Amino acid sequence: MELTADQEAEIAAARDRRAETSRPTVPALEAMLHRPIAVLDHGFVRVIDYMGDDGAIVQAARVSYGRGTRRVSEDTGLIRYLMRHHHSTPFEMCEIKLHVKLPIFVARQWIRHRTANVNEYSARYSILDREFYLPAPEHLAAQSETNRQGRGAVLEGAEAAEVLDLLRADAARCHDHYLAMLNEGADGAPRDPARAGLARELARMNLTLNTYTQWYWKIDLHNLFHFLALRADAHAQYEIRAYAEAMLGITEAWVPAAHQAFRDYRLGAATLSAPMLAVLRRMLAGETVAQEASGLSKREWAEMMAVIG
Amino acid sequence: MELTADQEAEIAAARDRRAETSRPTVPALEAMLHRPIAVLDHGFVRVIDYMGDDGAIVQAARVSYGRGTRRVSEDTGLIRYLMRHHHSTPFEMCEIKLHVKLPIFVARQWIRHRTANVNEYSARYSILDREFYLPAPEHLAAQSETNRQGRGAVLEGAEAAEVLDLLRADAARCHDHYLAMLNEGADGAPRDPARAGLARELARMNLTLNTYTQWYWKIDLHNLFHFLALRADAHAQYEIRAYAEAMLGITEAWVPAAHQAFRDYRLGAATLSAPMLAVLRRMLAGETVAQEASGLSKREWAEMMAVIG
Amino acid sequence: MELTADQEAEIAAARDRRAETSRPTVPALEAMLHRPIAVLDHGFVRVIDYMGDDGAIVQAARVSYGRGTRRVSEDTGLIRYLMRHHHSTPFEMCEIKLHVKLPIFVARQWIRHRTANVNEYSARYSILDREFYLPAPEHLAAQSETNRQGRGAVLEGAEAAEVLDLLRADAARCHDHYLAMLNEGADGAPRDPARAGLARELARMNLTLNTYTQWYWKIDLHNLFHFLALRADAHAQYEIRAYAEAMLGITEAWVPAAHQAFRDYRLGAATLSAPMLAVLRRMLAGETVAQEASGLSKREWAEMMAVIG
Amino acid sequence: MELTADQEAEIAAARDRRAETSRPTVPALEAMLHRPIAVLDHGFVRVIDYMGDDGAIVQAARVSYGRGTRRVSEDTGLIRYLMRHHHSTPFEMCEIKLHVKLPIFVARQWIRHRTANVNEYSARYSILDREFYLPAPEHLAAQSETNRQGRGAVLEGAEAAEVLDLLRADAARCHDHYLAMLNEGADGAPRDPARAGLARELARMNLTLNTYTQWYWKIDLHNLFHFLALRADAHAQYEIRAYAEAMLGITEAWVPAAHQAFRDYRLGAATLSAPMLAVLRRMLAGETVAQEASGLSKREWAEMMAVIG
Repeated sequence: MELTADQEAEIAAARDRRAETSRPTVPALEAMLHRPIAVLDHGFVRVIDYMGDDGAIVQAARVSYGRGTRRVSEDTGLIRYLMRHHHSTPFEMCEIKLHVKLPIFVARQWIRHRTANVNEYSARYSILDREFYLPAPEHLAAQSETNRQGRGAVLEGAEAAEVLDLLRADAARCHDHYLAMLNEGADGAPRDPARAGLARELARMNLTLNTYTQWYWKIDLHNLFHFLALRADAHAQYEIRAYAEAMLGITEAWVPAAHQAFRDYRLGAATLSAPMLAVLRRMLAGETVAQEASGLSKREWAEMMAVIG
Repeated sequence: MELTADQEAEIAAARDRRAETSRPTVPALEAMLHRPIAVLDHGFVRVIDYMGDDGAIVQAARVSYGRGTRRVSEDTGLIRYLMRHHHSTPFEMCEIKLHVKLPIFVARQWIRHRTANVNEYSARYSILDREFYLPAPEHLAAQSETNRQGRGAVLEGAEAAEVLDLLRADAARCHDHYLAMLNEGADGAPRDPARAGLARELARMNLTLNTYTQWYWKIDLHNLFHFLALRADAHAQYEIRAYAEAMLGITEAWVPAAHQAFRDYRLGAATLSAPMLAVLRRMLAGETVAQEASGLSKREWAEMMAVIG
Repeated sequence: MELTADQEAEIAAARDRRAETSRPTVPALEAMLHRPIAVLDHGFVRVIDYMGDDGAIVQAARVSYGRGTRRVSEDTGLIRYLMRHHHSTPFEMCEIKLHVKLPIFVARQWIRHRTANVNEYSARYSILDREFYLPAPEHLAAQSETNRQGRGAVLEGAEAAEVLDLLRADAARCHDHYLAMLNEGADGAPRDPARAGLARELARMNLTLNTYTQWYWKIDLHNLFHFLALRADAHAQYEIRAYAEAMLGITEAWVPAAHQAFRDYRLGAATLSAPMLAVLRRMLAGETVAQEASGLSKREWAEMMAVIG
Repeated sequence: MELTADQEAEIAAARDRRAETSRPTVPALEAMLHRPIAVLDHGFVRVIDYMGDDGAIVQAARVSYGRGTRRVSEDTGLIRYLMRHHHSTPFEMCEIKLHVKLPIFVARQWIRHRTANVNEYSARYSILDREFYLPAPEHLAAQSETNRQGRGAVLEGAEAAEVLDLLRADAARCHDHYLAMLNEGADGAPRDPARAGLARELARMNLTLNTYTQWYWKIDLHNLFHFLALRADAHAQYEIRAYAEAMLGITEAWVPAAHQAFRDYRLGAATLSAPMLAVLRRMLAGETVAQEASGLSKREWAEMMAVIG
């Protein structure tokens, strides 16, 4: 991720613009404000604004005036109780606004989360930069043979090189032709005065899905945690998981108590079905249970073993 | 609206808690923060937190780095263009959190707006105060004879006095019995040691719909304007309109350019249907059009006349 | 629950109105259509319309043409897999529309689920019937001493009788005064010609929260299951749980495979946190773990013991 | 749009599957069920299921039992009143499920409407067909010189031919390389046994944005009309407008009264701002008003003149 001099100046200006407020303020998040966190080869996440803190979750749960006089340990305990028991509304009282730069195929997964506000860079209106995602060698994986939507071993040798060459060449050629069809010079004048230039809203269809786009994305903490539970999961595609990891770092700075509760009671938790719980109780009573006698399908049995180790 | 000494102290403490931030900050709204604005006889609205300002709307619309160097007149023009053309997503980039105290029958209308976050005071968990809404004499209106969901003239004389007496006595008696059934003393010990006390979640059913409740309510600016367009309208019930008016004062302090655009292009605007526009063009061409020859129903004709004066 | 002769005739007419369709149709649900299922003393739930069946969930998951040729056992297995792994979108492809009659205090809990469509009977426009919920003796419970939002033992003897008398008398008196303030006779003419009559939108505030209201409520199957997971739970208030139980009977008739998967993987399931899973693995390895050495708080320990028996 | 023999057989089977129902049924929509309506060069829209009809809108508005005995003219009048006065909830009581095949760049605009349920064909799991959108010659437009997100004149001669050649060649080459990187033969065996094959979730990034995808899309009538108001508008991009036009044909068959009200009061309507209404009243009073003396900006003036002709 490289920033232009203009972008660096704008970020510095935004960080220098300081004012006093009596809103809840989180120094650890203020320290991150406006600064891009690099993700993938050209992407980033940066915090534009936020509302609330751990205390705002507690305040909403108590629906009381002000912050009260409870000790921190009690606030943390309340937050952990709320998370454990799926009380969602107090977490909705915190909100964050991010600026994200990401490949279009990642944006297409991301946007399926409908409970957020989005303003995306418009390729009907403006021209997309010549930036596309190319996987690092260690992420250039083969199709998994056991999981139809997973990855297997990393590609090696000639195949890896050829794949990277194809991805790079196709994306570059498509973007070159995009600019050629647009026929717009840097100064806005036509490159070739003899051509009319294709409409931007049409020319964009020639771009490949690894082209980078960007958007402002605003979401409340409950829905952000829901997004992270799905997208920081080991089954999520690596490319979106990389963004989820960056955002976990942000929640850790912003709402440390809620973040830890989320790690304990969601990310690291497991749900056992009624039939699984019946098997578990037999096991804890000392019985040796085999899959065949468990009442679970082979698939469920494997899932349960993965949980209880 | 009276605040207890504890509440006043908490508000003062919240206002004294000041920190530096590089988030967008609005001095006129900071001046209002935490302070209750009185509505009806015991209700209020107070701003707990906010995110964004007029500049955040512009920033989202431009999806660009930072605030740019445009002049204020251009920003205002862009905001007005966005409002006029129903571009909703940039307005979603601002968010506000309010603490509202309101009668239950108003809360039931209010909650029908689903695009907000809510934490309400729980009468399963806690005991509701002995506060209920009684209309001021000038709002004690008769049923409208022409509009099945509207108000007519103000009640007068004996009828007004009797109505107010009934409302006051029934609400008070129901609350007294609520406390009696609960059987909880101020110290948590039973009032009458011989009684078990009815569960709070059941006892509350004895309260009347003018009893006050309270909640934290968080909403983005686009959806707030949608709420205000419906609830600050002359057809809205007076009691919820009183809250809408208070919130209009808040948006004026918070996002003055967006607020003015909302007044010009929503609150004060009118939509003319295709048949109405056909009639209008005939009128502007100098033709005298009567309802019978207009193609409009009597009701539509009346609605159109109300718009074009 | 009593129906008027008019209502019975309308239900019979709706059931007699039969047409041919090539939409997915569920005979077991057709047999229930339009007929009210009694809930509480005057309430009901009845199915007005539905879209989709178990096959529609499978179809959406496969995003393929038509129903395919898979055997039923495979469809059921796929539905169970989707439920177990929290794939929500295929369940969103089924939709149901219910007509519900319920006390206002239950409606206030219910409406907090925002992902549904609602048309409620309007007391601004019409007059509410003289029907209010009175708990059956076995549901007239004392406040729980251990759970601030739960119920304890059933009230008995004089206290039970007095509570019921208060609830009945207050609701009846408030409704009588509501009608008196409205001053509307059965024929629409004023009861007392000397009075103007209070506006309906104001008079309703005199009603108690156990007064019955009604609405049309339309929701997709994913969100219905989410509602049922919360409201059919043992911690939900009995009065809303009674409606949830009735709706579980509806989902069993409508989408039997999804219903069974929901029972196994949601209603009867339990989530164990990361710290709980660590304790569980020690136990399964043969270690005797005490709460003090578990790393769990007393509350978490109790919750875990409740799960693993 | 070509269907395979398998697809045709599945559609025929779905249409032949007939059952009796006492749900509201619309013969004109039954006649369209399951059959694809061609859109663009390879796309389509087809109705999979529906819930409700014009009568269901009226029923919800009346929140009454059954269909009542009102005459059709009154029902139509009520629907028109509801549409004119922006009563949204009765229209939410109808729901439709569509199967849509569309280019990815259109899908990206479409998905911004968040109030729908979506199941999209997954390119993590399956392989996308070799089908991409190429504009018909009359839709191959130049960039507008006056509107940054609009189209100007149609491209002609050599430029048009070159643009089409580029679009066709780039999409084809990218798809060829996609298949080559996947290394999957028709039978699932590797094309080249010496290669591992790139994971599907990665290979898809090489596709161009005019590649076709498909999804099931389910939405209520209120939100469908909102979608159509934006996407059937002359300012919408032609390619999504083509889908909106097909869907207008569907609503006309499904809910003819609501459809006509939508055309009169939304599609063909115009909103005049408070300042525009002030100008209009001066004009109707006989005054000749010039832009300079109108209080409107040049842009607003032009917009008003476009409305009043």
